[in-house]
Amino acid sequence: MSDQELSTIPARKGSAAHVKKGQLIRVINTHGEQVVDTWAFAAGDLNEFMSMEHSRAHILKIIPQVGDTMLTNKRRPVLTFVEDTAGAVHDTLMAACDRYRYELLGCAEYHDNCTDNLHEALHQLGLHAPETPSPLNLFMNVPVQQNGRLTFDPPVSSKGSSVTLRAEMDLVIAFSACPQDIIPVNGKNLKPTEAHFQILS
Amino acid sequence: MSDQELSTIPARKGSAAHVKKGQLIRVINTHGEQVVDTWAFAAGDLNEFMSMEHSRAHILKIIPQVGDTMLTNKRRPVLTFVEDTAGAVHDTLMAACDRYRYELLGCAEYHDNCTDNLHEALHQLGLHAPETPSPLNLFMNVPVQQNGRLTFDPPVSSKGSSVTLRAEMDLVIAFSACPQDIIPVNGKNLKPTEAHFQILS
Repeated sequence: MSDQELSTIPARKGSAAHVKKGQLIRVINTHGEQVVDTWAFAAGDLNEFMSMEHSRAHILKIIPQVGDTMLTNKRRPVLTFVEDTAGAVHDTLMAACDRYRYELLGCAEYHDNCTDNLHEALHQLGLHAPETPSPLNLFMNVPVQQNGRLTFDPPVSSKGSSVTLRAEMDLVIAFSACPQDIIPVNGKNLKPTEAHFQILS
Repeated sequence: MSDQELSTIPARKGSAAHVKKGQLIRVINTHGEQVVDTWAFAAGDLNEFMSMEHSRAHILKIIPQVGDTMLTNKRRPVLTFVEDTAGAVHDTLMAACDRYRYELLGCAEYHDNCTDNLHEALHQLGLHAPETPSPLNLFMNVPVQQNGRLTFDPPVSSKGSSVTLRAEMDLVIAFSACPQDIIPVNGKNLKPTEAHFQILS
């Protein structure tokens, strides 16, 4: 593991990076209660991307666990969960927040949002994603009740906890430190924070 | 309700139609155990479409029920469940089947699939969808266990049961009578059948 440089996902913003097949990506919940929306795109073709709906049909679970491999929309392996010290509570059900979400929550002014953060982070790499795939919401706590009802709850992860993913193809990974500060998905304090990631090779 | 013409969704194939805001769409499980993958696109802009991940964040349920309104990827109301005589068991979690799905299931030859059926049905209307949104899988039975595990089970719907949806905007509706005949999502007999729909105005 030669390259362990810590990269920042700034509070309320996004970040993206190139990753080679076989490399590990550690996503660190630096301050403990920050949701990190996560996307992966095939390096050569951003029309192929990690898909929650294709992954659920493969892992046959709502929440991926260590050993589970997420699939692209072409049902190819893209990311495998290899370690999880964050309580194994993540979300695959909810769309990334977007300007429409905050408008409906009453924001009159522009609000940072994960959808724009994704596209801006890719733009920084000179890339353009034709779609906004449903994200893998790391550390996000959306319990499913027995009657199928859903709630947005504070994360159960702790400071410095992390998830480590193995790249199953050359890919572009993108993150957004979710700027949600109206409902408690980033903790009851409603204070979005930075998070970090490392590419380990 | 002047126009009650019954339209066929042929077995293993798709069908699409224009619908005006306020019209009702009845989807009939003619033979009782047929999953009908369903999509809706804004009439003027197929970049806006019914989104499972945006809808779940709004209805706060995995399975929509009578009274629930599905949202587009711009979080606008698109379809409301107004009647359900099919047991209220549907699916919002699973991707449409596609050529990759059947290849992984061992098919050496081309297999009809809901993804191709969607695009072919739109093509028949002279339309092109830039994406393959995650479908609303009417009558599909994917129970969520308490531990979050998922299974593909036979439908609980019965012959002639139906779901009625109200269009909340001018839209294009598209259906696929799922051709899955390898796992029992269309019943234990593994025999995909036709289904029908009516546009009621």
